[in-house]
Amino acid sequence: MKLGMIGLGKMGYNLVLNCLDHGHEVVAFDVHPEPAQKLEQKGAIAAASIEELASKLKPPRVVWMMVPAGETVDLVLEQLVPHLSRGDIVIDGGNSNYKHTLARAEKLQANGLHYMDVGTSGGTSGAREGGCFMIGGNPESFRSIEPIFKDIAVKNGYLYAGEVGSGHFLKMVHNGIEYGMMQAIGEGFEILDKSPFNYNYEDVARVWANGSVIRGWLMELTQNAFSKDPNLEEIRGVMQASGEGQWTVETALEQKASAPVIAMSLFMRFRSLEEDTFHGKVVAALRNEFGGHAVVKK
Amino acid sequence: MKLGMIGLGKMGYNLVLNCLDHGHEVVAFDVHPEPAQKLEQKGAIAAASIEELASKLKPPRVVWMMVPAGETVDLVLEQLVPHLSRGDIVIDGGNSNYKHTLARAEKLQANGLHYMDVGTSGGTSGAREGGCFMIGGNPESFRSIEPIFKDIAVKNGYLYAGEVGSGHFLKMVHNGIEYGMMQAIGEGFEILDKSPFNYNYEDVARVWANGSVIRGWLMELTQNAFSKDPNLEEIRGVMQASGEGQWTVETALEQKASAPVIAMSLFMRFRSLEEDTFHGKVVAALRNEFGGHAVVKK
Amino acid sequence: MKLGMIGLGKMGYNLVLNCLDHGHEVVAFDVHPEPAQKLEQKGAIAAASIEELASKLKPPRVVWMMVPAGETVDLVLEQLVPHLSRGDIVIDGGNSNYKHTLARAEKLQANGLHYMDVGTSGGTSGAREGGCFMIGGNPESFRSIEPIFKDIAVKNGYLYAGEVGSGHFLKMVHNGIEYGMMQAIGEGFEILDKSPFNYNYEDVARVWANGSVIRGWLMELTQNAFSKDPNLEEIRGVMQASGEGQWTVETALEQKASAPVIAMSLFMRFRSLEEDTFHGKVVAALRNEFGGHAVVKK
Amino acid sequence: MKLGMIGLGKMGYNLVLNCLDHGHEVVAFDVHPEPAQKLEQKGAIAAASIEELASKLKPPRVVWMMVPAGETVDLVLEQLVPHLSRGDIVIDGGNSNYKHTLARAEKLQANGLHYMDVGTSGGTSGAREGGCFMIGGNPESFRSIEPIFKDIAVKNGYLYAGEVGSGHFLKMVHNGIEYGMMQAIGEGFEILDKSPFNYNYEDVARVWANGSVIRGWLMELTQNAFSKDPNLEEIRGVMQASGEGQWTVETALEQKASAPVIAMSLFMRFRSLEEDTFHGKVVAALRNEFGGHAVVKK
Repeated sequence: MKLGMIGLGKMGYNLVLNCLDHGHEVVAFDVHPEPAQKLEQKGAIAAASIEELASKLKPPRVVWMMVPAGETVDLVLEQLVPHLSRGDIVIDGGNSNYKHTLARAEKLQANGLHYMDVGTSGGTSGAREGGCFMIGGNPESFRSIEPIFKDIAVKNGYLYAGEVGSGHFLKMVHNGIEYGMMQAIGEGFEILDKSPFNYNYEDVARVWANGSVIRGWLMELTQNAFSKDPNLEEIRGVMQASGEGQWTVETALEQKASAPVIAMSLFMRFRSLEEDTFHGKVVAALRNEFGGHAVVKK
Repeated sequence: MKLGMIGLGKMGYNLVLNCLDHGHEVVAFDVHPEPAQKLEQKGAIAAASIEELASKLKPPRVVWMMVPAGETVDLVLEQLVPHLSRGDIVIDGGNSNYKHTLARAEKLQANGLHYMDVGTSGGTSGAREGGCFMIGGNPESFRSIEPIFKDIAVKNGYLYAGEVGSGHFLKMVHNGIEYGMMQAIGEGFEILDKSPFNYNYEDVARVWANGSVIRGWLMELTQNAFSKDPNLEEIRGVMQASGEGQWTVETALEQKASAPVIAMSLFMRFRSLEEDTFHGKVVAALRNEFGGHAVVKK
Repeated sequence: MKLGMIGLGKMGYNLVLNCLDHGHEVVAFDVHPEPAQKLEQKGAIAAASIEELASKLKPPRVVWMMVPAGETVDLVLEQLVPHLSRGDIVIDGGNSNYKHTLARAEKLQANGLHYMDVGTSGGTSGAREGGCFMIGGNPESFRSIEPIFKDIAVKNGYLYAGEVGSGHFLKMVHNGIEYGMMQAIGEGFEILDKSPFNYNYEDVARVWANGSVIRGWLMELTQNAFSKDPNLEEIRGVMQASGEGQWTVETALEQKASAPVIAMSLFMRFRSLEEDTFHGKVVAALRNEFGGHAVVKK
Repeated sequence: MKLGMIGLGKMGYNLVLNCLDHGHEVVAFDVHPEPAQKLEQKGAIAAASIEELASKLKPPRVVWMMVPAGETVDLVLEQLVPHLSRGDIVIDGGNSNYKHTLARAEKLQANGLHYMDVGTSGGTSGAREGGCFMIGGNPESFRSIEPIFKDIAVKNGYLYAGEVGSGHFLKMVHNGIEYGMMQAIGEGFEILDKSPFNYNYEDVARVWANGSVIRGWLMELTQNAFSKDPNLEEIRGVMQASGEGQWTVETALEQKASAPVIAMSLFMRFRSLEEDTFHGKVVAALRNEFGGHAVVKK
């Protein structure tokens, strides 16, 4: 098939290579010209603008956006839509909030365009060699682009999840689970680290990655991480959060669902971004008030 | 009544004054001689040793220990018991683990002594002017010392809770609740602090301390704290924990009871004692592994 | 002063009585005519409609809405605003989401009206005998209605918190803290209930309400509750949530603040509304899959 | 090698078959005679008693206990030790608390015996076809039995973790992580279940098991579970807990480590075992007290 790819960062760039490997034609664009030029040498068609990208595709076009969630998606759509024709398919492959996706789909539908949301997992290596794709949109559109996913996903690694929004929703929840799993792994290693025993963490991660109940890609990555820095002495435990975990908890609140593990994973990330906390000051001040317990002065 | 007081720290010293106010005779001892000497000037009988304290009381003696929980209690008992007689009453007024209290009570009972556990709340001001006492031990012993509590407690501020251990258990749970309440208050003020509004925290604590559903002594103390340091800029949010919160959670685990709020209050205290966490490092390293997300280097 | 009160439920009715006690004139309206009629016998002026209420007040009017948060507020405003004049003050005394308050204030300001938000705490008894009021709005409007609050609040029981929205925000956080405190108290009594000791819960609540660190109105109410049903055998542990706790957690998420205790209080409420959970089924099924552990069949 | 296996339940039975597959000789005993008889037909040597098992092994013996953690281990050791000789190796392959393991090791060492702890993961299928083993004990003993693990573990699926106790500690933490991961997965599916979309959960688990960041054995088992009962309608969400998760949290408490995710996973299990809660009753009663909110009667 032929498709356009807008956004050639770590993920988009690798997805293009993956598509090229399987004989798809890709028109590639990024605000920075270098990645498109590099991809041209590997068989892609570089476009210097979104307009040019659209012009190098024939209706019904398939245009995949792989850009940061949020305003960028809207900016791209603003520039892209005027150059599209009724029946074209626009894919948002990023980690967009599914509510934004629903709103965008409605707008594009008014223009006769088909909007699809593709939650993408598997990291940069997955994008390159075979990823995991959770796909929402109308079923006809899905069928027309399914050949791409057959090629770029690992076996059983793509799912038509249902109407538009269902793909990003699924990816959001996937990331929420990921937060919980990662925090669980982190807590486990912290308990090892504070134990009376003297474990080699790379060895521990390796044995847990092989044959145990908790084996999986995250444990293999844990092994990789420890192989590079055996006690993680070179890094700080600052846990950034890019949004999906927070949306998962917000969704749980809307649903009145209990999601203590995902919520606590998120809160520990927030906590890690702060040197000190106001709640801690209040509690410390209170202990001083009623019991005369010493406070730590700044 | 006449009683002995061993341990004249912030709490014990104030309890002696409180007893003297109500006409009780107190033989007072501490490893540091000064507080007993000061109390002598206010009407107490100073003792230079535990032996002397015992000798200045007549059987059936009442000896109240107000010393740090843990080994100190055992050390005091070791020195005290040889000088006691069958039927004497020994009170542990500190924050001892109720399991230790049960074990000590069994030992003392073998010597014909009555062991009582008195959980004491209300802070140093309560000890001085009227506190809250949760009392365990045999009912006859309780009745014999009840006159003291009638005097040194606020109205309705003492309870015979049941057999030995029940007083310290009750105090343990009281402190567990206190942890949860304090963390809740702290979280609330943190949310105010991060809000778009510009609150005066002392004013907020004052209005919440007057007429609201969450009014109570902790909110009054919050007001006090903010009156001294309006934004708590001078202190760090380091939340020490002295044991009862942890025992409460341990007890919940033994009981297979859900105690998420008390447990999280405790975990946030633990977290506040650390500059950085190993779980955070693991999560940060994992994010780097699968998504190439930057880590913060040390 | 003279004011109008719209909404004569448990809270509004009591507030009117409280105002009358202090010599204020109140024009009272409710969709059900009975409460206004009853209040008329106690000195209020009954209105049969919102229009009539407005007509019985002279500009600059003060109209206090005490109606359920959400759509009802908008419905009342829709009916009320056409009958108001520039410079009139409209108070929302309910538990509205502060974001809705900000939006409503903007609309009313366009009509030259002053919108004020008054978070009200202290329960129905507080409304009747002296409550706690957290007040947002422009400072001139506040000054003009302050005499009312001086009379109907307990001492130190009202606060001008700042611009519009700040009152409802403060009440929201107050309720978040309340959730945490109540859950902490609940967990404590559950641990007592599962303990080897045999406590009388009313007695425990009484001693904790007198002189302890955790004394306060909630503990007094706990004592009341146990005085009526000593082991709470007649009720089920279904914990409804009316919104403010959820908004507090949502706000914490927006702020990237850690609020584990308030969040867990909320999640335990959600959990209490369900007989069974889907997460529980998944975990049970997984244990069966890897370990052959028996599941409980429906 | 030749070894004895005591305890032929789901795990022990499969471990014997696994050993036989690789040419090891196994003397097998269980309190129920059937499994040993069945295993005899597959090449094992059946023993009718622990004494007989010991007599059919030559010093230095290797005896592997695969019995329920707790008292059973002590009962087996009581019967086994008198029939052993200095230098024999006793393996505890169950989920024993590492503190018990340390105490037992000390006792056996006094008899000149080598005690080893082998945390075993991978479920019953792992025991049969290749499991994961976390091994503690003295290094010489480990080296002498390593050939067994080379054969019965998957590749990289065994680890000599260090001195005695380190194996069971590692398994404990592994299970703690497992609790967190399973709860995270459960919460995720609950959020899907309450979503506006209409997911096929088996399909979701399949796509997540292939190429995603959260892929791993637990997700494959989730897929299996949904393939048998698409909406888990036949089972109840009752989550039993066998001990290791609780020990992990207890250990975290001792270490003053924050383990919110593992702790909350455990609390949600406890919660799932109860129809109703006392903390819920207290909160419901309090809401009624201050706000007149209706309670649900029994």
